[in-house]
Amino acid sequence: MIPRYSRPEMTRIWDPENRFRIWFEIEAHACDALAELGVIPKEAAAEIWAKGQWEVARIDEIERETKHDVIAFLTNLAEYVGPAARFVHQGMTSSDLLDTCLAVQLAQATDILLDDLDRLLKALEKRAFEHKLTPTMGRSHGIHAEPTTFGLKLATHYAAFKRDRERLVAARADIATCAISGAVGTFANIDPRVEAHVAAKMGLGIEPISTQVIPRDRHAMYFSVLGVIASSIENLSIEIRHLQRSEVREAEEYFSPGQKGSSAMPHKRNPVLSENLTGLARIVRAAVTPALENVALWHERDISHSSVERVFGPDATIALDFALNRLVGLIDKLIVYPENMQANLDRYGGLVHSQRVLLALTQAGLSREDSYQAVQRNAMKVWLEGKDFLTELKGDPLVSAKIEARALEECFDLGYHYKHVDDIFRRVFGRA
Amino acid sequence: MIPRYSRPEMTRIWDPENRFRIWFEIEAHACDALAELGVIPKEAAAEIWAKGQWEVARIDEIERETKHDVIAFLTNLAEYVGPAARFVHQGMTSSDLLDTCLAVQLAQATDILLDDLDRLLKALEKRAFEHKLTPTMGRSHGIHAEPTTFGLKLATHYAAFKRDRERLVAARADIATCAISGAVGTFANIDPRVEAHVAAKMGLGIEPISTQVIPRDRHAMYFSVLGVIASSIENLSIEIRHLQRSEVREAEEYFSPGQKGSSAMPHKRNPVLSENLTGLARIVRAAVTPALENVALWHERDISHSSVERVFGPDATIALDFALNRLVGLIDKLIVYPENMQANLDRYGGLVHSQRVLLALTQAGLSREDSYQAVQRNAMKVWLEGKDFLTELKGDPLVSAKIEARALEECFDLGYHYKHVDDIFRRVFGRA
Amino acid sequence: MIPRYSRPEMTRIWDPENRFRIWFEIEAHACDALAELGVIPKEAAAEIWAKGQWEVARIDEIERETKHDVIAFLTNLAEYVGPAARFVHQGMTSSDLLDTCLAVQLAQATDILLDDLDRLLKALEKRAFEHKLTPTMGRSHGIHAEPTTFGLKLATHYAAFKRDRERLVAARADIATCAISGAVGTFANIDPRVEAHVAAKMGLGIEPISTQVIPRDRHAMYFSVLGVIASSIENLSIEIRHLQRSEVREAEEYFSPGQKGSSAMPHKRNPVLSENLTGLARIVRAAVTPALENVALWHERDISHSSVERVFGPDATIALDFALNRLVGLIDKLIVYPENMQANLDRYGGLVHSQRVLLALTQAGLSREDSYQAVQRNAMKVWLEGKDFLTELKGDPLVSAKIEARALEECFDLGYHYKHVDDIFRRVFGRA
Amino acid sequence: MIPRYSRPEMTRIWDPENRFRIWFEIEAHACDALAELGVIPKEAAAEIWAKGQWEVARIDEIERETKHDVIAFLTNLAEYVGPAARFVHQGMTSSDLLDTCLAVQLAQATDILLDDLDRLLKALEKRAFEHKLTPTMGRSHGIHAEPTTFGLKLATHYAAFKRDRERLVAARADIATCAISGAVGTFANIDPRVEAHVAAKMGLGIEPISTQVIPRDRHAMYFSVLGVIASSIENLSIEIRHLQRSEVREAEEYFSPGQKGSSAMPHKRNPVLSENLTGLARIVRAAVTPALENVALWHERDISHSSVERVFGPDATIALDFALNRLVGLIDKLIVYPENMQANLDRYGGLVHSQRVLLALTQAGLSREDSYQAVQRNAMKVWLEGKDFLTELKGDPLVSAKIEARALEECFDLGYHYKHVDDIFRRVFGRA
Repeated sequence: MIPRYSRPEMTRIWDPENRFRIWFEIEAHACDALAELGVIPKEAAAEIWAKGQWEVARIDEIERETKHDVIAFLTNLAEYVGPAARFVHQGMTSSDLLDTCLAVQLAQATDILLDDLDRLLKALEKRAFEHKLTPTMGRSHGIHAEPTTFGLKLATHYAAFKRDRERLVAARADIATCAISGAVGTFANIDPRVEAHVAAKMGLGIEPISTQVIPRDRHAMYFSVLGVIASSIENLSIEIRHLQRSEVREAEEYFSPGQKGSSAMPHKRNPVLSENLTGLARIVRAAVTPALENVALWHERDISHSSVERVFGPDATIALDFALNRLVGLIDKLIVYPENMQANLDRYGGLVHSQRVLLALTQAGLSREDSYQAVQRNAMKVWLEGKDFLTELKGDPLVSAKIEARALEECFDLGYHYKHVDDIFRRVFGRA
Repeated sequence: MIPRYSRPEMTRIWDPENRFRIWFEIEAHACDALAELGVIPKEAAAEIWAKGQWEVARIDEIERETKHDVIAFLTNLAEYVGPAARFVHQGMTSSDLLDTCLAVQLAQATDILLDDLDRLLKALEKRAFEHKLTPTMGRSHGIHAEPTTFGLKLATHYAAFKRDRERLVAARADIATCAISGAVGTFANIDPRVEAHVAAKMGLGIEPISTQVIPRDRHAMYFSVLGVIASSIENLSIEIRHLQRSEVREAEEYFSPGQKGSSAMPHKRNPVLSENLTGLARIVRAAVTPALENVALWHERDISHSSVERVFGPDATIALDFALNRLVGLIDKLIVYPENMQANLDRYGGLVHSQRVLLALTQAGLSREDSYQAVQRNAMKVWLEGKDFLTELKGDPLVSAKIEARALEECFDLGYHYKHVDDIFRRVFGRA
Repeated sequence: MIPRYSRPEMTRIWDPENRFRIWFEIEAHACDALAELGVIPKEAAAEIWAKGQWEVARIDEIERETKHDVIAFLTNLAEYVGPAARFVHQGMTSSDLLDTCLAVQLAQATDILLDDLDRLLKALEKRAFEHKLTPTMGRSHGIHAEPTTFGLKLATHYAAFKRDRERLVAARADIATCAISGAVGTFANIDPRVEAHVAAKMGLGIEPISTQVIPRDRHAMYFSVLGVIASSIENLSIEIRHLQRSEVREAEEYFSPGQKGSSAMPHKRNPVLSENLTGLARIVRAAVTPALENVALWHERDISHSSVERVFGPDATIALDFALNRLVGLIDKLIVYPENMQANLDRYGGLVHSQRVLLALTQAGLSREDSYQAVQRNAMKVWLEGKDFLTELKGDPLVSAKIEARALEECFDLGYHYKHVDDIFRRVFGRA
Repeated sequence: MIPRYSRPEMTRIWDPENRFRIWFEIEAHACDALAELGVIPKEAAAEIWAKGQWEVARIDEIERETKHDVIAFLTNLAEYVGPAARFVHQGMTSSDLLDTCLAVQLAQATDILLDDLDRLLKALEKRAFEHKLTPTMGRSHGIHAEPTTFGLKLATHYAAFKRDRERLVAARADIATCAISGAVGTFANIDPRVEAHVAAKMGLGIEPISTQVIPRDRHAMYFSVLGVIASSIENLSIEIRHLQRSEVREAEEYFSPGQKGSSAMPHKRNPVLSENLTGLARIVRAAVTPALENVALWHERDISHSSVERVFGPDATIALDFALNRLVGLIDKLIVYPENMQANLDRYGGLVHSQRVLLALTQAGLSREDSYQAVQRNAMKVWLEGKDFLTELKGDPLVSAKIEARALEECFDLGYHYKHVDDIFRRVFGRA
């Protein structure tokens, strides 16, 4: 991923340094297990831990020759460890190392993503409670529907990211397995107890059956979950972009004092962060289809999945981490304009109360169809002629015959819509 | 495709009746060529044309037995043709029939789509000229930028669909080839002249090299072009949805007198057609990835592509045809509110002229940086305090020192932005 | 989905009849709750249950007029229920009905898919135990690697589908929620207790926060899981296609006595079912991206998701159900050729034992690098000159100096590779 | 793209140095046009060309402050140009620069890709002629079908890449347009003649109508074409992987003397390049869906497309360039085993001639159905019992009654299948 969309916390996981450290740990733990089983001398295992070192530049140098990264690493390691190095990697295949390492890296990446989500949830919860009862227009189809609160809007996204968090926890469990099963996965040259030992030490589960590689349905599931989270980000981003539209202006990304919205038009304040998040969501989702295509490897394994994972393993997690962090900051500092929310609510003269008038008419004995026509008839005058809804209703003989003025006015009460906000908050946050 | 999103003109192409007719024509033309080459008797070819018939229900019945649609068809055809039927399909494989038929069907479908595009272009052109100089807000990032005209908006989409039309013409040429080359495509049992004859008669090009099947990169390209067209539809649909937003209301889908926007809220007028088009675009695009995955068949052919094409051949063309037709009607009847456009333009007290003031200040000798700060400073008062931009500028000592009041007022001239509208129209439509 | 890839069990779920039945139940249960709360008379609720009926053709007829399916249904229902019908749908929106119904349909569809998976798991388990120790070539990169057993191959796929089953159970829980929260989800006109009652009666969870619609990240997750399952199907299908290749012929799809593999080439026996499954996998996966794109609805809801779900809700579940059932039959009746497996194993004169010889040489004190070169040198003679591996090794002075003939021969023992098969089976199946 | 899959020729295009050079040229050419129009002094334009310089590190430094790359570039440029710098970028927006630059970069990238394709076509043509008449098995469904030649196989891929080349030429024309139209594209502050001048100088077409940005359907089409080319690569890669399978071994990737196929199994020779190409194809295709999603920008423009293009512009072109080059080398050095091809052809005792025997029987007066049964009956003995096809046919009373031995033997002539190879070559290559 390009530096512009990368945070060092996440890129570090995909750096050679981290990869080689994980490789070393896997090999050294495996040696411990092999020593315990009497396959190699215990002193050798101890020596590997004691002397084990490596240097990225040197490994690169060797790899340019051997064109095999695992062999290059083992060669460099041997330069430090000395004769005991021949006990390293006994009965293992490169995939045992590579796939288990990928599992560790994805688990580490997921821990960062889970932390990102936690901070996002916290930010959303804070702002949701802050605006629990801030009246705002609820819109379906982009059209004014009925009143809601800004807190409810945020609570909706909180609930979505909460679900995403659960999905990611499940995806982490799915992906975090250790396979050290040797060529085609039969354990012919390595005892399953080595795998069990390394798994425990590296914080991974045991892959029940591997075929030299860890089955790729796990990775397909993992990247699909990243794709769903990306879509949740897109959803919230688009909400903010809508709220910041010049005609709406109910909320706005923080705009720092010296900031320039446009080089040509000094008046601009653009929701560029949210727009960027929309694009980043597409980038993260781009990993889903290749991950699904990676599942069907030939026989016990082919290596077609490898390049895809070398690219999208880092790219998808880095971009998602960056996006989540950008979103946390955006929500934290989001400027909210309650007065504009109220102004928009009032914009079409109470039209948003049409359902309540409809229900009142039916309760007053009018058929649903007649009630609908009466309300719609007056509503259209508001849309098309800019009339005031309440005035029109009062002046409509059919309506006024059924509902008296004061009762009509009561239909225009905003509080009516908010009586269950606390109930909903309790469902979402466990408190109101 | 479900009937809800289907037009009979297009579904007819994918009906068994049309498919069997095309099959018959391919077989009969092939017989003509075979007769000409002396491979079969000329009388046989004539008899096949004369007596050739088939019945869908009967073919289905036979297929339930043989589990092979081509054999079922040939069997039924033989029931009508009699003994001469044994000369049918000589040296051909099922794929010769199936792939050439698919080419004909896709060509037929494309002709309808091209006609759809022509009608859409006509509708867009008509409305574009109608509103060539209707002032409207130009928006970048959803934020007021500078004035444009509603005609220019429509011209943009016209130009996109014009490009789409050219792409579709190219895609039609790509897809419309005839292959009658026998098993693994070597012409071992059928002379290439048969292929040439059938191609000419069916209005297709000759597939230069086939491997029993027509290469699937052609279909991948074709469905990709449908995906691009679908995205153009999405683009225009989202524009309309934005314009119809309650806070914008610059344009609106036609709303018929008896129509109900919502069962619960009688005041609603929703852009449901445009929203539906957004969804249909996703449906059409869903065919792209499977079509790309279909390219890599094993060796001379496998049949993994077949089910994908049985589903997405009809689905993508039917949904796209439906969407284009819906869009034609939508554009034709779109309600435009020039007064709302003007009101939105005026909404932020001339803020949209900020660039022109900036340029005037730099031309008056102020540095670009100082000019920018001066204009931005006053613009922010409009955004945040609801002030009038021109008044603020006049009252700013730094600005008024550089530009006198009348010159400032001239910067607020709308006509300034429209001096090249005719030039653009000439580029797009060839006339202004 | 086209009938060719549909089973009645699954299509029934998406039939109008089932949809209207679910609608009726939701409405009637809601009436019970409303009656309990005193909003409507208890007699009315009872009457609705007693008299409630509908007729698909009549609903279609009304819909052609009103262009609104929910209103059409309610109108037809009222024709049967009479005056009490005005108490139906009180305070509800169409989405309350539609989204809750979709949840029920997806839950029903999932139950069928889970049953499919159970039968597939059973078939795989049976065949896996049958061939637990049937020796077969393990291949990486399509190249002979080391021996495995056919049972292990099947166990791998069993484990994958077992994971898929767990994912599907989680996805079912994700998708199976009830939302009856009224316009923009505030419960302004309907008590949350109605939702709770209907949820319980329909076997659904309660949607904690809805915005007139159930949030679409749930559906995105659901269709992603279907995509992962489809990829597992593709994986197994490609294995079978490989095994049936003319040069491999280790397994074969059942070929019925009267069957024809090709209309032109009578000798053909093609793995058409597996190829078809490969294509069906692409079809199911095509639903993933649109489902991800459906998440970002505008504000409280737009209706862009609707067309996508009307198409892919049925299409993806029907195609997946069909594919799973086809796969069950395929596995059940798969013809296995153990003698060909053994012949392929023996094909390259014991080359598959190269690792063991390598390890023996290193254990005999030769450096890993020298050992590798020695083994590789002799292996290449087998590949390129068709020599016998064991003979070559015995004749190699460097090798024979380190390992005596009998020890070398022992390296060629097949049983060596199978000592952990029972361990793996116990992990996968809980028994060996 | 990670260095592992990058070639310097292509990455250079996406380097900051190249981008800033293009930016400078666009600005300087625009100044020339502005000077010609009398908007700025001619001396200023000359001075900009004379003194114009920039330094990547300095630009980065400024950007860290201003957070705007175009402003950072212009500021750094001004540091070199001096006072005349205020005439730079007059009336232009950042998008004028960015989008036109992207067009130049994509055109440059395309020129490299076209050259890659030319070299690939050359390599394929050379090998195709080399093996024009090398007999090899034609396979449908992975099953032996009828004979073809290895040259025909390669010719098929040649034809596909030839089509891809034409598509890429069209996509280049689609993408290579210049837009300098100012805010929202009205040319309010910049004369269209500036655009025309810059377009001519930069080798681009003129964008007929832009809305500050170049319409993204162009880019969607472009990346779709890259996706189709990637699929053609996948197609050829999978062919090679199949041919290298241990049981097939008709062709093999070049394996250098010191190369190691596996760290654990010294006997391995794996088609890792082709497998890598399969993965790279997935990577390139991953750009297609985001590019399609980028089309629907809000109103005159939003910036959601930008991050997608910053990532996939380089990634898709670099990965495709790398893949094409890898493929050229692979084809150039591909080891072909004609004797193995012949051995595979002969493997099932002449079964591949079954169609010809079938046709001979029908020509001898037997009904097609009876002929089919007779041939199939004998063919199955070959499949299932390992019998020799010709011997069985000769011994079948029904067959021998219709065709005498010598005529039967003639049906087994390989040359029969190759009589049209020259015709096909002429179609594909224009020569035979």
